[in-house]
Amino acid sequence: MMRIDVISAVPEILYSPLNHSIIKRARVRGKVEIHLHNLRDYADNKHLQIDDKPYGGGAGMILKPEPFFRCIDKLKSERTYDKLIVTSARGKLFGQSDANRLSLAQNLIFIAGHYKGIDERVIERFADEEFSVGNFVLTGGELPVLIFIDSIVRLIPGVLNDSESALSDSFQAGENIGEPYYTKPEVIDGMKVPDVLLRGDHRAIAEWKEEESHKSTDIWKRNNNT
Amino acid sequence: MMRIDVISAVPEILYSPLNHSIIKRARVRGKVEIHLHNLRDYADNKHLQIDDKPYGGGAGMILKPEPFFRCIDKLKSERTYDKLIVTSARGKLFGQSDANRLSLAQNLIFIAGHYKGIDERVIERFADEEFSVGNFVLTGGELPVLIFIDSIVRLIPGVLNDSESALSDSFQAGENIGEPYYTKPEVIDGMKVPDVLLRGDHRAIAEWKEEESHKSTDIWKRNNNT
Repeated sequence: MMRIDVISAVPEILYSPLNHSIIKRARVRGKVEIHLHNLRDYADNKHLQIDDKPYGGGAGMILKPEPFFRCIDKLKSERTYDKLIVTSARGKLFGQSDANRLSLAQNLIFIAGHYKGIDERVIERFADEEFSVGNFVLTGGELPVLIFIDSIVRLIPGVLNDSESALSDSFQAGENIGEPYYTKPEVIDGMKVPDVLLRGDHRAIAEWKEEESHKSTDIWKRNNNT
Repeated sequence: MMRIDVISAVPEILYSPLNHSIIKRARVRGKVEIHLHNLRDYADNKHLQIDDKPYGGGAGMILKPEPFFRCIDKLKSERTYDKLIVTSARGKLFGQSDANRLSLAQNLIFIAGHYKGIDERVIERFADEEFSVGNFVLTGGELPVLIFIDSIVRLIPGVLNDSESALSDSFQAGENIGEPYYTKPEVIDGMKVPDVLLRGDHRAIAEWKEEESHKSTDIWKRNNNT
């Protein structure tokens, strides 16, 4: 069973996403256990302070290093971790190959930044990889961490049912985006399902899917200048 | 006040992220109201079926079009929406400029896909924009929608406090990544805060920040081949 530890200043953010849909199912099926650690539980002063002003001045608060050191040292004394991953604006954009690779791990630690950032010494001492989810500003790393967990956990054998087949998803087969999908009813508000999908000609359907998947991939490439 | 409507097959996923940190604060301060719509509430048959097999065969289930048509028609009859946004693998990668632009909107609808996908006619009829959060497979669009909402809502005037200054964040000033951050204590486990940040020489500090920000940006560029 994979074990994932998440260290956060606001772990409550993660509750509902971890308790629904595929992540919940992975936990119920015993494929992954996810442990949340509240930085405040590792603060040592009486005010439970976990952040402070940045040295050198500037706006925003920085997460103090001691609670991270304490929490990570404790976890690492209990077991060996494959990777410790930090969310970071300067990190590598997370991609499907990262999800594939990390889905083979036994034990992972994720650190979610929050407020202005994390004391750099935490990253220097502990981070094996720094990932960004995209080129935009977020309030914290909690949502990116949830996205990493979702993309990783669904790849663990036995989490998806056969009918959900991770392998046929967009991006899993290289950079191929899937075709458009249609289901019942045949007509809604004057809009009809493409005829080819209704005629039962399997070869024609396969050709249509191939062609439409190319079109989707072209749209994706045009959208993203690749 | 901005209004955001989210249509989802599993709206429960969104509960905890919408009720903590900046999004909660934006709601409490009356800067945004967020309404969740469960597709099942718009299903019409007695089994409350919201998904079905894809025409033309293939793995996975497709979200049926009728509940979307019903929900969106109802919302649009009640008020005018600036944009209806769908999460989609072929969409444009969401970026800071999208967050900036959408933060000026009055009313937004987000549709979160789930399972294998959404009947294409929903997108054809209603979608103003299709966004992807990254090039990897997720179980649904709920986490991407939460990321879009977080990045948008924090830009609404009055949501962040002055000290949190959205303008100094990475990505907001073009593609400049921030410098590393340090806070107390000066030394932890033998690791020291850079001297320059402790000496109080404001010009030297400004130069250090500039240089380190360039370094971070270079790391980011190297990480992401840009």
